[in-house]
Amino acid sequence: KELSLAPSTASFDRAKMEDLLKRRFFFDQSFAIYGGITGQYDFGPMGCALKANLLNSWRSFFILEEQMLEVDCSILTPEPVLKASGHVDRFADLMVKDVKNGECFRLDHLIKNHLEKVAADKKTADDIKEKCRDIVVRLDGMTKDEMSAVLKEFKITSPITGNDLSEPVEFNLMFGTQIGPSGLVKGFLRPETAQGIFVNFKRLLEFNQGKLPFAAAQIGNAFRNEISPRSGLIRVREFTMAEIEHFCDPKNKDHPKFDSVRDVKLQLYSACNQMDGKPAVVMTIGEAVDKGLVANQTLGYFMSRIQLFLIKIGIDPKKLRFRQHMSNEMAHYACDCWDAECLTSYGWVECVGCADRSAFDLTQHSKATGMRLAAEKKLSEPKVVDVVEAAINKAALGKAFRKEAKLVIDVLEKFEEAELCEIEKQLSEKGSYIITTNSTDYELTGDMVSIKRLKKTLHVEEVVPNVVEPSFGIGRIMYALFEHNFRIREGDEQRTFFSLPPVVAPLKCTVLPLSNNPQFQPFIKRLSEGLTQVDVSHRIDDSSGSIGRRYARTDEVAVPFGITVDFDSLKEPHTATLRERDSTGQVRISLDELPSVVRDLANGRLTWQEVEKKYPKFEQQESTTGA
Amino acid sequence: KELSLAPSTASFDRAKMEDLLKRRFFFDQSFAIYGGITGQYDFGPMGCALKANLLNSWRSFFILEEQMLEVDCSILTPEPVLKASGHVDRFADLMVKDVKNGECFRLDHLIKNHLEKVAADKKTADDIKEKCRDIVVRLDGMTKDEMSAVLKEFKITSPITGNDLSEPVEFNLMFGTQIGPSGLVKGFLRPETAQGIFVNFKRLLEFNQGKLPFAAAQIGNAFRNEISPRSGLIRVREFTMAEIEHFCDPKNKDHPKFDSVRDVKLQLYSACNQMDGKPAVVMTIGEAVDKGLVANQTLGYFMSRIQLFLIKIGIDPKKLRFRQHMSNEMAHYACDCWDAECLTSYGWVECVGCADRSAFDLTQHSKATGMRLAAEKKLSEPKVVDVVEAAINKAALGKAFRKEAKLVIDVLEKFEEAELCEIEKQLSEKGSYIITTNSTDYELTGDMVSIKRLKKTLHVEEVVPNVVEPSFGIGRIMYALFEHNFRIREGDEQRTFFSLPPVVAPLKCTVLPLSNNPQFQPFIKRLSEGLTQVDVSHRIDDSSGSIGRRYARTDEVAVPFGITVDFDSLKEPHTATLRERDSTGQVRISLDELPSVVRDLANGRLTWQEVEKKYPKFEQQESTTGA
Repeated sequence: KELSLAPSTASFDRAKMEDLLKRRFFFDQSFAIYGGITGQYDFGPMGCALKANLLNSWRSFFILEEQMLEVDCSILTPEPVLKASGHVDRFADLMVKDVKNGECFRLDHLIKNHLEKVAADKKTADDIKEKCRDIVVRLDGMTKDEMSAVLKEFKITSPITGNDLSEPVEFNLMFGTQIGPSGLVKGFLRPETAQGIFVNFKRLLEFNQGKLPFAAAQIGNAFRNEISPRSGLIRVREFTMAEIEHFCDPKNKDHPKFDSVRDVKLQLYSACNQMDGKPAVVMTIGEAVDKGLVANQTLGYFMSRIQLFLIKIGIDPKKLRFRQHMSNEMAHYACDCWDAECLTSYGWVECVGCADRSAFDLTQHSKATGMRLAAEKKLSEPKVVDVVEAAINKAALGKAFRKEAKLVIDVLEKFEEAELCEIEKQLSEKGSYIITTNSTDYELTGDMVSIKRLKKTLHVEEVVPNVVEPSFGIGRIMYALFEHNFRIREGDEQRTFFSLPPVVAPLKCTVLPLSNNPQFQPFIKRLSEGLTQVDVSHRIDDSSGSIGRRYARTDEVAVPFGITVDFDSLKEPHTATLRERDSTGQVRISLDELPSVVRDLANGRLTWQEVEKKYPKFEQQESTTGA
Repeated sequence: KELSLAPSTASFDRAKMEDLLKRRFFFDQSFAIYGGITGQYDFGPMGCALKANLLNSWRSFFILEEQMLEVDCSILTPEPVLKASGHVDRFADLMVKDVKNGECFRLDHLIKNHLEKVAADKKTADDIKEKCRDIVVRLDGMTKDEMSAVLKEFKITSPITGNDLSEPVEFNLMFGTQIGPSGLVKGFLRPETAQGIFVNFKRLLEFNQGKLPFAAAQIGNAFRNEISPRSGLIRVREFTMAEIEHFCDPKNKDHPKFDSVRDVKLQLYSACNQMDGKPAVVMTIGEAVDKGLVANQTLGYFMSRIQLFLIKIGIDPKKLRFRQHMSNEMAHYACDCWDAECLTSYGWVECVGCADRSAFDLTQHSKATGMRLAAEKKLSEPKVVDVVEAAINKAALGKAFRKEAKLVIDVLEKFEEAELCEIEKQLSEKGSYIITTNSTDYELTGDMVSIKRLKKTLHVEEVVPNVVEPSFGIGRIMYALFEHNFRIREGDEQRTFFSLPPVVAPLKCTVLPLSNNPQFQPFIKRLSEGLTQVDVSHRIDDSSGSIGRRYARTDEVAVPFGITVDFDSLKEPHTATLRERDSTGQVRISLDELPSVVRDLANGRLTWQEVEKKYPKFEQQESTTGA
């Protein structure tokens, strides 16, 4: 079974949804009273509660269930860390400027928008249309010069002023600042949370008593100075990420729990199929790993877990796929990568990346700091190896180089076999060897250092773990959730709502008195206290307006359950109405039972169908109730 | 009853505690493999879990129970927002530099340390000692010139090199950066989360259907570029805050729930007592508010709630006091402020501030943006008022000033009564009035504008709400928690642990097989699944080592409960041992019951005493078990 790639969003009205999100303050532009800043959003009470619920679900689905080591690391990061990780040199987008007014555009987005417009134009010749489409597909992997050529070939100018554009320049996406009062320590706001985990690798390995595999996780904010963010929550300058770094033996990437997900079916859009213009295919992750389409069990395990999580919190499975990165678009650290993408009105949007970062980061930080970031692996049987070592005569070095001797020794101790052999060769041929460090030459002679060859019996070997990294963009997932759960009540265009699953819904329950009759108050209070006691987040809505109108209001903010206290509630046995949002079905339940029923509905231990079977149906029409 | 102010920490060994915190990776210096940055810390798995539990407790204690509006706002803040709030001009500390090597020192800390050393010196004359102590008390309220004079009088030099120091300069504590690619939009990392709430005031008021009072809350990171942070988690450059902004009627700061806390006793250290050298006093918050010692019920209500929360999560009530700010040390926005301070080995440390910010922030943002940030209050009876208004002839203005007319009208519309009267006066005396805006003069004549006086009947009045702000420093609270709960097992100096309450303990339970005998595995698995099902965070510890040694390890990371599966567990009826950390008492419970018993212990629905009464005691000695 294959799913079409064409967005099936004909019936979706983005403006209507955005109006609801803004009107009920799920989120909105930051600092709007000051004119606002593009790419920055504030979450209001409903967005914030949704986000907190989503993160709590994430924490229990991943961290608790898999016993991961959670960390919470600094955002401000000194330059050398991000130099080693490659971000200082390579974390950049190409940008062009309007030569007259200086307005900046992100080059790939500019080209894509222009070519899509050209391709959509009826007057464009078919071969040109074909060329445009071909360039758009290959855009992610293009070099600066190739893009510059496209810019010239299609005579692209500023889409706003029509002015000419500058040559493309690289713009680093990190926000820079100075740490401390001297102005000398350069730092950046972290562009991802991952590096905080890597620099803590030794502590985490020790915490795990030296054993591989283990996973560390972090939830936190990261920052990217986007050139011209324009797509709402999807492209922003600060955002919350939830990242997992699973450290494993580079020679064995099997996962002990792989069998538990082997039969999960995923929609996989491989690099090959993308290049060949073929659609995504659905297959079990077991089959995908067996065939070698997905590189290893650990990657496959996490892909399945990502899908299970996304569906649990309300992502539409029909609008979810995994797209493999093509080799020319892979991040500088990755050796294989699959993105979980959600279909929205903006097209397919990357919501979770799942990359095999190999040993890239640990190796880079080892090189930069001289610390061995590695784990010990017990050998199945002891191994005898040939070792080349430098025998250093510290006294002789000290005499020759005085206080600089330590510098020379540090360099010597980091030398690997090839360099040591070179020393041996030069000492025997020329009688000396020159070490250059800090722009100074130091001449070593045979009395200072000699090269020894010996045999050693090893019981363990040192391995630099490989890393599989699932990386969740929380804002993007939230945006996809909004789109996938936006509903219009049948027969009433004006009544829009979100059918978010109770596990992430901002509030689980509303408590409504039928009117402002003071007799209802004690019952409202009793229900509210009962709900608080069983940890059910709720709100009392004692505003005026009919019950129907008030239900419409709570539907808008995705509250899945509503309790109404009416005149029947005043009589023994005290009962109230419980209403479910999506079906608008209502039942009658005793006040004592209500809190625990709502709790069990909210945490998924009870379904609405079960409740409807067990309790008497309440038939009154919403629109006339409380008139 | 008065409590002594002298630190009663003679028996506390900070080095021993710090060793434990570091060894078990509660937290440690950030980027240590790169040499580290002072004032930045990473939380490891245990610190991170403690922090998450603390924040969840905070969320349910404050946000859920009080139905506050939680928001999650941007960290990157454009300059105009922080200009209006006063931070660009006034959020600075005084700093001096070593004139030779440029090292920076925070001036007040430098003076304090120096004078305390002088006062402690036996050779110092008594009158000088007295003078030193007096200066230290008054230091927080001193001006730059006064501190500079102290520097000279005591000939203070760099405590590290002995070199001379520069004149004091103000150093702004905000981290600056540029937003967007142009380099033209200046921004800062927010120094507090509060401003995000103030700039969203209109949206929040609307969310609350226009009604006062209401409270908004935010949990998030803030950043301060401290000059020379040196006291661990207490003074850091980035930190998590949890802030509440309670908006209320400026003329009525009573709190509807004040009676529920009226009898809570607080240790209050008033500004008067500080100045008079008197100690703190214990009194109920009801009495304190009645006497006018605490300014109003709302402030008092939150102070009590702060105390109840801190005690609930494990702060020692004997090491907690509320200290009132003296008028000369109050922040620029505050009109009354009480700090909840915890006694630690660093002395009394501010952990929660509770300030009445009056209408300062809303007024400032109103002025800066021209938006009315106010609420409407229904009058008890309609009021007739005299109103002065400008009647603007837009046609005449348009004719005279063309496209600049709008500019002039904007200015006119913002004029208040005094300015309108001045226009009236000048129009009648001179026949014209000059408006100056954007460095241009515009001459108004009687045909363009006239001043009208009329009577209006008002049913509502506009009020700018006042704000009471409890502001929690999460890192500082965590540090105080560590100190207050650090214990040494009686009779064994080497066995240290944290007696954190289950509600915040990083993990609730450890599950231990007596040995690596494979027969235990199915029972361990069954317990682990049962605990996961009832949301009890736990770890399986199947490492080698005696049960006693493994318990000591879990005690170190504050795990309150431990379950051991032993040979008796294999027999029907299957049971296991449950052990409590602080008492080291043990009971025997069936495997089926264990998960729910641990859950109820962990969330406080069951006490250990109740468990000990209900289940048979298990008598085996820890040190010999599993030998």
